[in-house]
Amino acid sequence: MIPERLERLRQEMEKRGIDVYIVPTADFHQSEYVGEHFKARAFITGFTGSAGTAIITKTEAGLWTDGRYFVQAGLQLRGTTVTLYKMGEEGVPTVEEHLRNTLKEGGCLGFDGRVVSTKEGREFAAIVSEKSGSLYTREDLVDLIWSSRPPLSREPMTVLDEKYAGKSIGDKLAALRRAMKDKGAQEHLISSLYDIAWLLNIRGGDIRHVPVVLSYLSLTQDRCLWFLQKEIVTEKIQAYLDENGVEIRSYDEFYDYVRTIPQGTAVLLDPSVINYRICTSLPENTKLIEAQDPSVLMRSVKNETEVENTRKAHVKDAVAMCKFMYWLKNNIGKIPMTEISVSDYLEGLRREQEGFLDLSFDTISAYAEHGAICHYSAAPESNKELHPEGFLLVDSGGHYLEGTTDITRTFALGELTEEMRANFTRVCRANMNLANARFLYGCTGRNLDYIAREPLWEAGLDYKHGTGHGVGYVLNVHEGPQSFRWKLVPGTPEQCLEEGMITTDEPGIYLEGRYGIRTENELVCRKGEKNEYGQFMYFENITYVPIDLDAIDPEQITGTEKRRLNEYHARVYETIAPYLTEEEALWLKKYTRAI
Amino acid sequence: MIPERLERLRQEMEKRGIDVYIVPTADFHQSEYVGEHFKARAFITGFTGSAGTAIITKTEAGLWTDGRYFVQAGLQLRGTTVTLYKMGEEGVPTVEEHLRNTLKEGGCLGFDGRVVSTKEGREFAAIVSEKSGSLYTREDLVDLIWSSRPPLSREPMTVLDEKYAGKSIGDKLAALRRAMKDKGAQEHLISSLYDIAWLLNIRGGDIRHVPVVLSYLSLTQDRCLWFLQKEIVTEKIQAYLDENGVEIRSYDEFYDYVRTIPQGTAVLLDPSVINYRICTSLPENTKLIEAQDPSVLMRSVKNETEVENTRKAHVKDAVAMCKFMYWLKNNIGKIPMTEISVSDYLEGLRREQEGFLDLSFDTISAYAEHGAICHYSAAPESNKELHPEGFLLVDSGGHYLEGTTDITRTFALGELTEEMRANFTRVCRANMNLANARFLYGCTGRNLDYIAREPLWEAGLDYKHGTGHGVGYVLNVHEGPQSFRWKLVPGTPEQCLEEGMITTDEPGIYLEGRYGIRTENELVCRKGEKNEYGQFMYFENITYVPIDLDAIDPEQITGTEKRRLNEYHARVYETIAPYLTEEEALWLKKYTRAI
Repeated sequence: MIPERLERLRQEMEKRGIDVYIVPTADFHQSEYVGEHFKARAFITGFTGSAGTAIITKTEAGLWTDGRYFVQAGLQLRGTTVTLYKMGEEGVPTVEEHLRNTLKEGGCLGFDGRVVSTKEGREFAAIVSEKSGSLYTREDLVDLIWSSRPPLSREPMTVLDEKYAGKSIGDKLAALRRAMKDKGAQEHLISSLYDIAWLLNIRGGDIRHVPVVLSYLSLTQDRCLWFLQKEIVTEKIQAYLDENGVEIRSYDEFYDYVRTIPQGTAVLLDPSVINYRICTSLPENTKLIEAQDPSVLMRSVKNETEVENTRKAHVKDAVAMCKFMYWLKNNIGKIPMTEISVSDYLEGLRREQEGFLDLSFDTISAYAEHGAICHYSAAPESNKELHPEGFLLVDSGGHYLEGTTDITRTFALGELTEEMRANFTRVCRANMNLANARFLYGCTGRNLDYIAREPLWEAGLDYKHGTGHGVGYVLNVHEGPQSFRWKLVPGTPEQCLEEGMITTDEPGIYLEGRYGIRTENELVCRKGEKNEYGQFMYFENITYVPIDLDAIDPEQITGTEKRRLNEYHARVYETIAPYLTEEEALWLKKYTRAI
Repeated sequence: MIPERLERLRQEMEKRGIDVYIVPTADFHQSEYVGEHFKARAFITGFTGSAGTAIITKTEAGLWTDGRYFVQAGLQLRGTTVTLYKMGEEGVPTVEEHLRNTLKEGGCLGFDGRVVSTKEGREFAAIVSEKSGSLYTREDLVDLIWSSRPPLSREPMTVLDEKYAGKSIGDKLAALRRAMKDKGAQEHLISSLYDIAWLLNIRGGDIRHVPVVLSYLSLTQDRCLWFLQKEIVTEKIQAYLDENGVEIRSYDEFYDYVRTIPQGTAVLLDPSVINYRICTSLPENTKLIEAQDPSVLMRSVKNETEVENTRKAHVKDAVAMCKFMYWLKNNIGKIPMTEISVSDYLEGLRREQEGFLDLSFDTISAYAEHGAICHYSAAPESNKELHPEGFLLVDSGGHYLEGTTDITRTFALGELTEEMRANFTRVCRANMNLANARFLYGCTGRNLDYIAREPLWEAGLDYKHGTGHGVGYVLNVHEGPQSFRWKLVPGTPEQCLEEGMITTDEPGIYLEGRYGIRTENELVCRKGEKNEYGQFMYFENITYVPIDLDAIDPEQITGTEKRRLNEYHARVYETIAPYLTEEEALWLKKYTRAI
């Protein structure tokens, strides 16, 4: 199937004289996850992971993806003729290096200008220019051969009440307009679906598990234009928008609108988000002010209401998780279970919680060797039966009216080897040590990442992903700008950790073909003591679910580290027991006992 | 005295229409420490610390210095009319901000273009340009009023034999010429005295405790011109230079030479080192290739001979330090001692070691509250008598033919409070924890700095300096490009830790008016296991001197941390005991016992 699709794509390339065609994983908004309509890269390569770039030439097709997906991509690309390029591995060329090697002198490079960011588009254009070649960006070639392509999503939307959002649309617009002024911008173009949803306090459903509305926005000091599929604007929403001075325009009109922005306007935009076609549609003498959208930082620093609500969401989520763990521990080996069936059972428990809206991402329920596939997604054909032995890794979360959760627990289903317990204990120490960091204001995630990796690195182990990411508030479960990672991301400024930021803490160990372990909590950054040395900061752990003591080797967690685990478990019991049945609470007591 | 000097400087400023005059701490080579001739900033402000910038206007004089010197500068500036600006403190303007606030529209800013780097000079020029003002950089005004100014140093020089340097001048020149080619440079101007000494395998004595030769160098593919005070070139040196194709020119000729570089030449230089006058002397259409001198990284990555030699130097240095500690512990309270007398005693012990050349910096011998002054230097008027109580902090080192050492130990001279022992133990843990780091290749000092600060930050403590710096090989005791620090230094790229780099590990606690603690070892970066996760790295601790167990609270160092200290002490005993008298060795046994 894939070879045929590639062949038809090559025919379309041939017709247009295109030598190399790029199919990234993106919608028009550089969203992390994309709606069904936008899964062109999966369509053309067969690889369904959430990140990857395909490059197709007349004779070769390659797929670039990162460490999370090496195993999955390796499996899915079998028989497709697509070559896997493992990003970040020694000797593997980057996408840019490959283009440089592949594009012939005077060659033509093609991509759909709407699914490539301005920044990437410029890099591609620079490579083309080195080769005295040409660019072809005005068509989506995959669209021509994708007959059963799903239409653009057009899900209903709702207003997120201020008692949940914590800040009115008016306050947010005012803050953003001040930020524009500070930067000398007359107009601000926003295409990030997360920022638009945050700014307008609206939520939709146009990306699976990410409650956003497909749209673009243009803001000036006296006008706010929102470009969206007008069909979903109900009377109630229209009234809300009118009241707040938001004018609506059609989604398709945006590129024409951009062309009409007055000559010489100072336009603020983020070239790593705004797509190449938007930027190249701007009048030629537009004064570009290129910077991260100011709303990104505003959105990541949760206000007091959001933090307070998120705590409530985590309690609800933990009740579901604890009930799940109780059920799992008591029934494994007694009733049939599969990766999918336990994942469904957990979803059912979440749905029972008041204010539950949706899962915040597809649950990863990965048994035994599947756990080593970082972002494994159980499908009917891979669905493993669970047995009373080994590890089950469950990475899951929910959107509640009060916020979004993301939690991973790895459960011992029965017998474990000594090595498994040793590794589980390392991951537990890694998680707890980061959660207990105290640090001076000004630290970024790069300063702190080592704390989590230390128990692994000292044993010659590592995990090939960041230690943590920001979490959206009823939005994308992954958000920036802060993160915990040790490597510099070139071109990405490091974000210092601010009070109110919520970041995950998720170290892991993955042994291909054997098992995977990950333990993930969420941490709220808080202000501590301020003294002559500066403002000290710490984290509040807001995830309240036991770390499976059946998998802990008490010999390998001692002193301060043991105390931290015991204190954490005491807090879990105290917080969650009141919401459980007597039997469940008794069980929780045991699983949160001091060791 | 200082007010009179400032008055005379203001008169010279007045004559030339200069409104604001900058006196940095620098020689013509941006050396860290400067020779006596170059101590203009100390002359004009009275502050003798190694770092600081003075800004003088018609009505005000200000001195900017960093956290190491706040206490010392506060004392020395009393009665001078010079205001202290504590760099990095909240609300304190930077030098640039102050200039921006102070320089009037159309005003004239002056400085000696030879003692300001190109980078700084450009920043100053940009401020002047904002104010539509003018620059005056062709004279050294302090020189006009400094009648008893010491002349330029002109100390003899020697060749550092290849058995010490590990690499011939020919190999080094060839490597540097390859690096020039890679960067597309036809000519490379070097003014860093450390890089010139390293490149030519020569050592001099033109900066106190820094064995360099005042000089400039110009390198092309077929020529190497060395501009120095020719009087110090003996016949033997001349023969060595001839043999290696190094032509000599006079020190004063350099600026004229720069003016004659052919139009359009591609010149490699580091604008943060090459002074403003050199850069502005280049022909107008020179093609500047601005980058860190490639020799900086070559120099910091010690070759095998240098590492092997440095280990030997550290053993010698440790023998002196252990003998000193033995003497100190046995005689305190029995014979009179002062900060200076014990420092002299220690110097005597170092001088007894074979191959000893010089101290590597002025010894810091700081008793009680003086220990809180990070870079305290005992002078006859401050010289404290030592008593059998409290802490003595000694930061010292030597140049040996086999390399340079830098070590700090804090000694308990008698009774300590519980808090003192708690703090000493924290500093010990900080030091040991960093020394025992295991990490993946690619980490920079910013990834690891937290390890050292953790035991302090968890208690709301900190030290206002980096945790460690590179160490020169019979050169400046401080060198880059690597370091351990948690804050970004804007404009300075982070250097990943390479095998062979030698870096200090020197956390501390400083309680103003009370006491100071610092424990400093040197670490060689080494390659460890290479596996699927990457190349693991670790440190070899090459400083072999006990950390005073009299000041350790064993209750506060447990588990792994205690094991690390005991293992370290066992290595100290094993390495150093063979070089001690029987009595000293017995004593060392006790001070390196497992706790």
